[in-house]
Amino acid sequence: MRYLAVVLLAASVCFGQADGGFKPAPSNVLDSQYPKVDGSSRVLVRFKAPDAAKVKLNFWSGPKIDMEKQPDGYWTATTPPMAPGLHYYTIILDGAEVSDPASTAYFGGGKWASAVEVPEAGADYYQIENVPHGQVRQVWYHSSVTGTWRDAFVYLPPGYDTSNAHYPVLYLQHGAGEDETGWTRQGKANFILDNLIASGNTKPMILVMADGYATRAGYVVPDLTGKPFGSPEMMQVMKERMGAFEDDMTQVLIPFIDKTFRTLPDRDHRAMAGLSMGGMQTFQVTFDHLDLFSYIGGFSGAMNIFEMGNKKMDLKTAYHGAMADPAAFAQRVHLLWLGVGTEEPAWIKTGLENMNAVLNEGKVKHVFYESPGTSHEWQTWRRDLKNFAPLLFQPADTQSK
Amino acid sequence: MRYLAVVLLAASVCFGQADGGFKPAPSNVLDSQYPKVDGSSRVLVRFKAPDAAKVKLNFWSGPKIDMEKQPDGYWTATTPPMAPGLHYYTIILDGAEVSDPASTAYFGGGKWASAVEVPEAGADYYQIENVPHGQVRQVWYHSSVTGTWRDAFVYLPPGYDTSNAHYPVLYLQHGAGEDETGWTRQGKANFILDNLIASGNTKPMILVMADGYATRAGYVVPDLTGKPFGSPEMMQVMKERMGAFEDDMTQVLIPFIDKTFRTLPDRDHRAMAGLSMGGMQTFQVTFDHLDLFSYIGGFSGAMNIFEMGNKKMDLKTAYHGAMADPAAFAQRVHLLWLGVGTEEPAWIKTGLENMNAVLNEGKVKHVFYESPGTSHEWQTWRRDLKNFAPLLFQPADTQSK
Repeated sequence: MRYLAVVLLAASVCFGQADGGFKPAPSNVLDSQYPKVDGSSRVLVRFKAPDAAKVKLNFWSGPKIDMEKQPDGYWTATTPPMAPGLHYYTIILDGAEVSDPASTAYFGGGKWASAVEVPEAGADYYQIENVPHGQVRQVWYHSSVTGTWRDAFVYLPPGYDTSNAHYPVLYLQHGAGEDETGWTRQGKANFILDNLIASGNTKPMILVMADGYATRAGYVVPDLTGKPFGSPEMMQVMKERMGAFEDDMTQVLIPFIDKTFRTLPDRDHRAMAGLSMGGMQTFQVTFDHLDLFSYIGGFSGAMNIFEMGNKKMDLKTAYHGAMADPAAFAQRVHLLWLGVGTEEPAWIKTGLENMNAVLNEGKVKHVFYESPGTSHEWQTWRRDLKNFAPLLFQPADTQSK
Repeated sequence: MRYLAVVLLAASVCFGQADGGFKPAPSNVLDSQYPKVDGSSRVLVRFKAPDAAKVKLNFWSGPKIDMEKQPDGYWTATTPPMAPGLHYYTIILDGAEVSDPASTAYFGGGKWASAVEVPEAGADYYQIENVPHGQVRQVWYHSSVTGTWRDAFVYLPPGYDTSNAHYPVLYLQHGAGEDETGWTRQGKANFILDNLIASGNTKPMILVMADGYATRAGYVVPDLTGKPFGSPEMMQVMKERMGAFEDDMTQVLIPFIDKTFRTLPDRDHRAMAGLSMGGMQTFQVTFDHLDLFSYIGGFSGAMNIFEMGNKKMDLKTAYHGAMADPAAFAQRVHLLWLGVGTEEPAWIKTGLENMNAVLNEGKVKHVFYESPGTSHEWQTWRRDLKNFAPLLFQPADTQSK
């Protein structure tokens, strides 16, 4: 069994090499020495491509840098200082966009992409700490809406199995191009909740992280070839998919969760939040079903593009007029949260700032959270969750119907 | 939020394209149309690399084929008919070995590699079927052996949460270069168990899939530069790692599992099996701890290379002489299983056939299972599990100590 021996050993013979202050990133696979990160958050990537003519390092929300060929067939590049957190990146190799095999792959951008974790000094709220840990369960349910088996990931707080308590539930959605694994693998949502709960300032709760893509049973996607972006035909397909997701969540997933776990199955103990596309889905699902939800979070994504377009939100009519009477809305919705990173692209930031301004003008009670120095990336959403979760399910909230 | 719209839509505008009898593989990401598989199990791979000089399709246990450049910047290749099951592959692109972004990535070969699922006609035992489904839980425990937090995946059979029953446990290990996600993601072990349990011929049981890599707290890997393969220094490192894994499993993980879940915590209700390196680990751990285990499975891997080398196994001394008295051994070990694919590389197959011959000669009761037509790949190990699990924890077995 010599092959086994070689591979077993392979993980043993990588040693720390001198590279200034650069250390292997925590997101590397097994004992990979690259990518490396230094004390000023610069990232050094190394990629083997002995016969390539041109290799580029491509951070999706960061620098795009030509890599330099080294005599040993490796290409290297070092970034300027990066924001903290998990950054998706790919390598552009003679025109092919590929992942870096030295880094952990995460599902993002509709594929298994590399990402590198840049540590944030002093930020341990998303690390695994010496506190009690919940479990993350993958569960399967059959959906009468899609006609298929679907899965979801469910975080159960520490002590769930040894108590008889019933728990409130936060439904937490991934972004476009990501999937139901995102909030635990990229987001570290389970460790964030473990740490928050251990600190005593957050109610123990269940997280449900569902698959954000749905198509109704029997639905045939029409041929959109030649239809321009934003065409009525294209909008119709998107609306159809959003509706299928909404129906699956409200008609199938929520009843399944309430049947399968010891939940507090009422609107006072049910929240929904999502990032980017998941924020848009959150706003649609919750405002269509205020009988089911009383806490609403949009992390770098909120507005319904079908309803909004480029128009300024009209509080009288937006979301069925739910916010037209601010006092009644504040009574009914315990928390309305908009979050955005200060370094997000202008079109996202401006959209959310405009929405915030409209809510302020209309005196609609809400929280506007800005994550300093971060872009449309996971560090923004980890911070959203860290600050959003403690506001959920507090006793004073849970009185209205 | 136009970006969101574009990505949401992206999953909608891919249509089935005419490619003879080729259909998208079930392992493709989202709605990716490639790779495709036809009725005779040929695989058609397509990869975009407009500026590459040479692109090769590299199946790890299968064909290596030069891809052909198409006018649209994509490269394509079609394999001869493949064995059924999940096949790891990479693309060799101007000397760089990369994954195919159109396929699901799995952790194998020490990295996130692509793999394509070639359906097996009539084989639904590893598919998600309309039967009750267990849950797969990720759990974390602190190991006093490694000094770190470690995770494991745990399959709980259908009905676990709604019963008070106690269950037997099968510890199930991944191969070298894989990790604790392998048995569910690649192996579909949870669906295999769901289906077996639903059929009524397999005892409901818990599966525990642990991280097979361990290093003792404080252990510093010595510098092996210049030491030849098989050197005493290298063997020492491997032995050290194997020992750390064994101690973690027996001293920390098993007590943690027995404390956390409703197990039947005795040797009559505890099994261990593993594939390849995991089989080697299984033989070491179980034979060192027959007080803890009474069912043993080696799937394409069994012998302890430190003890065996190239020598013929001596039943008088191998594994502490546990098999020296075949009658006593049959009384003590309810099942000893060796599995191998008929198309595995000679050095693996011969090793296991030799071991089988020695066991036959020595009249040591065991099962030798050959998976027809499959190599050192997951279809072999899915079949091992499918045939191994029904033999576990049968009433007649559970009497000896």
